[in-house]
Amino acid sequence: TFLDKKTCGAQVNPCIRKNEAKVVNTVDIEEIGNQKAFCRCWRSEKFPYCDGSHNKHNETTGDNVGPLLVKKS
Amino acid sequence: TFLDKKTCGAQVNPCIRKNEAKVVNTVDIEEIGNQKAFCRCWRSEKFPYCDGSHNKHNETTGDNVGPLLVKKS
Ligand code: FES
Ligand code: FES
Repeated sequence: TFLDKKTCGAQVNPCIRKNEAKVVNTVDIEEIGNQKAFCRCWRSEKFPYCDGSHNKHNETTGDNVGPLLVKKS
Repeated sequence: TFLDKKTCGAQVNPCIRKNEAKVVNTVDIEEIGNQKAFCRCWRSEKFPYCDGSHNKHNETTGDNVGPLLVKKS
């Protein structure tokens, strides 16, 4: 996995809610149940949840991003 | 806020754990307490937690990313 020279000056979010100044999502702990995966690649069709789209992004760009898992122990 | 033409082919993560194929973080609900903010810009010094670095990233690149907030209602 190489470091993309374009990364540092580029935007992370290509298309989610680009009309807003800052995309913040608030999730209630009670809604999480046993486990939820949250997107950190900004390519999910189910944002703020992960739908596996990070895999295609990683393959295409050589990146290594993945979701945040929040779960009950 | 404009859409950066470099975004789609660029990596999201410039430097966190680049020796790993995929960066996944697992957090136990019990560790969250009343509220935690989780980084989705991949620039936080406290990753996987947000330290406010998204603001500099947004200013520099014209992006609009922000954290995931998980909280008790
Ligand atoms: S779809 Fe974005 S991290 Fe999984
Ligand atoms: S520091 Fe990355 S989202 Fe806040």
